Amino acid sequence: MSKLSNSLRASLDELARACRVLELEGQGDRVVGHMAWRDPEGRGMWMKRAGVALGEIFDSRDFILLDFDGNKRSGEGVKHGEWPIHSEILRLRPEINATAHTHPFYASVYSSAEDPLETVVPRSTTQPIRPPRFDDGHDLICTPDVAGAMVKTMGNNYAVILRNHGIVTCGAQIEDPVLVAIALEKMCHEALTINASGLKFSCPKDEGLLEKLETGKALDPSIIGSKIQWAYLCRKLARAEKAGDPRLTTEPIPITD
Amino acid sequence: MSKLSNSLRASLDELARACRVLELEGQGDRVVGHMAWRDPEGRGMWMKRAGVALGEIFDSRDFILLDFDGNKRSGEGVKHGEWPIHSEILRLRPEINATAHTHPFYASVYSSAEDPLETVVPRSTTQPIRPPRFDDGHDLICTPDVAGAMVKTMGNNYAVILRNHGIVTCGAQIEDPVLVAIALEKMCHEALTINASGLKFSCPKDEGLLEKLETGKALDPSIIGSKIQWAYLCRKLARAEKAGDPRLTTEPIPITD
Amino acid sequence: MSKLSNSLRASLDELARACRVLELEGQGDRVVGHMAWRDPEGRGMWMKRAGVALGEIFDSRDFILLDFDGNKRSGEGVKHGEWPIHSEILRLRPEINATAHTHPFYASVYSSAEDPLETVVPRSTTQPIRPPRFDDGHDLICTPDVAGAMVKTMGNNYAVILRNHGIVTCGAQIEDPVLVAIALEKMCHEALTINASGLKFSCPKDEGLLEKLETGKALDPSIIGSKIQWAYLCRKLARAEKAGDPRLTTEPIPITD
Amino acid sequence: MSKLSNSLRASLDELARACRVLELEGQGDRVVGHMAWRDPEGRGMWMKRAGVALGEIFDSRDFILLDFDGNKRSGEGVKHGEWPIHSEILRLRPEINATAHTHPFYASVYSSAEDPLETVVPRSTTQPIRPPRFDDGHDLICTPDVAGAMVKTMGNNYAVILRNHGIVTCGAQIEDPVLVAIALEKMCHEALTINASGLKFSCPKDEGLLEKLETGKALDPSIIGSKIQWAYLCRKLARAEKAGDPRLTTEPIPITD
Repeated sequence: MSKLSNSLRASLDELARACRVLELEGQGDRVVGHMAWRDPEGRGMWMKRAGVALGEIFDSRDFILLDFDGNKRSGEGVKHGEWPIHSEILRLRPEINATAHTHPFYASVYSSAEDPLETVVPRSTTQPIRPPRFDDGHDLICTPDVAGAMVKTMGNNYAVILRNHGIVTCGAQIEDPVLVAIALEKMCHEALTINASGLKFSCPKDEGLLEKLETGKALDPSIIGSKIQWAYLCRKLARAEKAGDPRLTTEPIPITD
Repeated sequence: MSKLSNSLRASLDELARACRVLELEGQGDRVVGHMAWRDPEGRGMWMKRAGVALGEIFDSRDFILLDFDGNKRSGEGVKHGEWPIHSEILRLRPEINATAHTHPFYASVYSSAEDPLETVVPRSTTQPIRPPRFDDGHDLICTPDVAGAMVKTMGNNYAVILRNHGIVTCGAQIEDPVLVAIALEKMCHEALTINASGLKFSCPKDEGLLEKLETGKALDPSIIGSKIQWAYLCRKLARAEKAGDPRLTTEPIPITD
Repeated sequence: MSKLSNSLRASLDELARACRVLELEGQGDRVVGHMAWRDPEGRGMWMKRAGVALGEIFDSRDFILLDFDGNKRSGEGVKHGEWPIHSEILRLRPEINATAHTHPFYASVYSSAEDPLETVVPRSTTQPIRPPRFDDGHDLICTPDVAGAMVKTMGNNYAVILRNHGIVTCGAQIEDPVLVAIALEKMCHEALTINASGLKFSCPKDEGLLEKLETGKALDPSIIGSKIQWAYLCRKLARAEKAGDPRLTTEPIPITD
Repeated sequence: MSKLSNSLRASLDELARACRVLELEGQGDRVVGHMAWRDPEGRGMWMKRAGVALGEIFDSRDFILLDFDGNKRSGEGVKHGEWPIHSEILRLRPEINATAHTHPFYASVYSSAEDPLETVVPRSTTQPIRPPRFDDGHDLICTPDVAGAMVKTMGNNYAVILRNHGIVTCGAQIEDPVLVAIALEKMCHEALTINASGLKFSCPKDEGLLEKLETGKALDPSIIGSKIQWAYLCRKLARAEKAGDPRLTTEPIPITD
C-alpha cells in the first residue's frame, strides 16, 4: 500500500474503532457486515476488507480503497461483494461520508414484518424515525443497480431496513452510522418485545419526532450528544479489549488474499 | 471545588457506588440516567455530572452541587438537562433524600403499555406496588413545571413510570432508589414475559401487598433487608470491577466542561 | 462452633459448592434462596445462613445447625425465616436428605400460570414431571403449618412450584436439588418460549415420562448420569471462579450476626 | 490407544476444536451432545467420548474409535448411547464425513412445533433450508433401526430436527456440521421471535433458496465462505479460551472409565 498521510491513517484507525464498537454493541454476525468512509482525496471510499469480523478490524491496514466502480486502488485484502451499498450512497448523497451495513439480531428479524417500525421509546437524536424498508429480493446487494434502488428508497434518511436481511445506516461523521445502527437495533428489540407482550400500548406520533429531526437536532455534526456518546463507546471498547472480550482482537489479523 | 468535609465526601463516594451498581444491574443506557442526593447542609442537591455513564461515576468528584433552581454551586462538570426531576422531588417530599432516573430496557418498554403494572412475583419490600405512570409527552423532563406534575402523579410512591421513556425512583437512603429501580425493572420483565406467553395467569391482589407497605415494612430505613441487599450489591460490584467488567470504570474519567 | 468431624466438614463444603453452582446456573436472586441438608448425626439440618447470596457460600462455616423446630444448635450467622420449608420436608420424607428453595426467573414467572407445566423437551432423569403447584398466598413460607401443607402438595415429587413465588426441590444426595432446580428452570423457560411463539406445538404424553421415573431411572443415587452432571458442574464452577465471575466469592464473607 | 499417525491426530485435534466451537456458540447442554468423524482408514468413526461437555473436549485423546456396530476399536473413555445417530449417517451417506448432535435452546424448543421452519433471514450457504423433522418418540436414538429411520427422514439434507429433542447436522468437512448447527439454531431463534411478536411478516419462498443449494453453492467443500467462517470461529475460540470462558477447558479432563 502506498504510504498513508498521518491524517488519513488516523481517520482509518478511527474507522477501525467504529467497526469494533459495532461488534461490541451486538451488531456483529460472523465475518459479515462492513463499513466504508469517503476518501478525503476524492478517489472513492475506504471499505473494511472481507474475511474477518467487525471486531477483528484492527487499524488502517484493514481497509481497502475502492473507486465507485468497485476497482481496488490501494490496500491489501479481499473486497466484500456488497461494496455497491456503500459506493451508491456516497455517490448519490454528498452530505454522507460514512456508511455501515450490519445484521443485528432484532433488526434482522423485524425486517420481515410488514408494518412500519414504531418508536416505542424515543431516546435521542441518533434514532432513525420510521426508517423505510427496502426489498432486495432477500439476496445480497451486489450491483450498483440494486444498490441505487436502495438509496432511492432510503431518501434522506440515515437508515434503511433491508427486508429479510439487515440494515444500512449512514451519516456525516465516522461514528454516525454506528450510533444510528445501535439505536435502530434497540428500537427493533423494543418494538418486538412490546408487540410480543400482547398488551395494549401506544407510541408517540411520528410528527413530533420528525419535527425534532427537521429542526436539525438529529445527526447534525455540531450536536455534542453524538460526540459524547461516541467518546463513551470508545472508553467502553477500550475496557472490553483490556478484559479480553473474545469478539474483539487486540492484534492485527494477518491478511491472506 | 471547595474542600469537602470527610463525611460529605464519604456520602458522595457512596452515591458514586450507587451509580455503578445501577450500571452493574442493567440500568445503564449509554451516558444517560442519573442520581441525586439532598445536600446535608441545605444548599440543594448533589447530582451526577453529565457526559459519562452511570458505570463511570468514580467518586465524589463526579457530582455537582445544584440549588433547587438548577444553579451550580460547587463541583466541576456539566449538568444534565433533566435536573428538575430531582430538585422537584426533593423540594416537595422532605422524607426523600435520594433519587434516580434511568432507562432500563424492560421498564422502558413496559412504560408504553396502558394497563397498570401487576406484581407477578412479590419479592421484597423494595418492590413498588402498582407504580403510577406519568405522561411527559415523551420528551425529556427539563422544566420544574413538568417535573412538578410528575411528582404530583408520583404521590407518596417510591417509583413512577414515565410513559415511553423510563423510570424515576427515590427513597430516604442513598441505596433506596437503586433497590427500587432494580426491583421495578425485574417486575416489568416478569410482567412482559408472562403476558407474552399467552398463558392464563393470576397475580396476588394489590391490597395485601399494599398492606405490607402501609404497615411500614417497605423502605423503612430500619429494615435490615435493604441494608443487607445493599451490602451484597456492593460486594458484587467490587468483584465485577476486579474482573474488568467493561461497563465499569476503575479510574476517574477526566472532566471536560 | 464445636469442631466438626472431617467427614461432616467435607459434606458441608460440598453443600457450599452446591449453593455456588445454583448461583452459577442462574438460580440466584440477591441474598435470597437457600439450601439445607439433613444432619447425619440426627440433630436436625444444616442450613445456609442468611444475609449472603448463594454464590457467596464459601464453605462449612456458612451453615448453621437447626433442629426441626428451628432452634439453632450450632454455627454462626442468622437463619432465614423460611427454614420450615426444609425442616418439614426432612421431617416428613425420610428418603430426602437435601433441599433447596430458589427464585429462578422463568420458573418464578411460570409459577403464576394456571395450567400444569408441560415437558417440551424431555432431557434427563433430573427433570421433574408435571410438578405440583402450591399456593402459599404469595407470602414467605415461615411456619411449619404452611410448610407442612406444601410438603403434602409436593407428595413424592422432587419439586414443587410455589405460586407467584419460586420453587422448592429436593433429593437424596446433596447435588439432587441443584440438578432438579436447573432442569425445572429450563423446562419453564422452554414452556414460556414455545407458548409465546403462538405456534401450534405438541409435547410427549406424561405417561411415558412418568414410567421412566417409576422404573427407578430418576434421581436414584445409582444413576451415573447425575454424578456425571454434577462433576461437570463442579468443573465449570471452578473455571468460573478462576475467571472471576462477579456472582461468586472466592473467599469467606465475614459473618455479622 | 495405539499410536495415531500425525495426520490422524491433527484431524482429531481439529474435531476437538469443533466440539469446543459448538460450546462457544451456545450449542452445549451439560455433558450431552456429541460429534463424530469418519475414520480415514475405513475402520468406522471417531466419536467424542461421554461424560464431559463439548467444551471440555481438549484434543485427539477425547475420541474413541467405534466400528459401525458400536464396538470400541481404539481409544479410552465411555461411548454415548446415541452412537447410532452417527454410524447410520456415515454408513448410508458416503458423501458425509462429519456429524453432530446437539440440544441448542431455540432449536430444541422449536422442534416441538408443527409447521415447517421458515427462513426469516436468509444468511449464507450454511443454512439448512426447511430441514425435515423426525419424531423419535421423544426418547434417545439408541438403536440402528431408529437411527436408520432418522437418516431416511433426513434425505440428502445437512440437518434434521428431532421432535421434542434437538438437532442432528452433518457435512463433508469437520467444520460443516458445526456451521450448520449454528445457523439452524439462529434460524429457530429468529422464527420464534418473529412469530412471538404477533406482527404480520413474510419470508422468502423456499424455491429460490433451494435453487442456491441445488446449484452447489451450499456446503460444497470448495466454498470459500465456509472456510472463512470456520477460521473466524477458531480465532474467536482462541480468544475465549485465553479470557477464561468457564464453559471451555484449557487442559485435558482425566478419563475415568
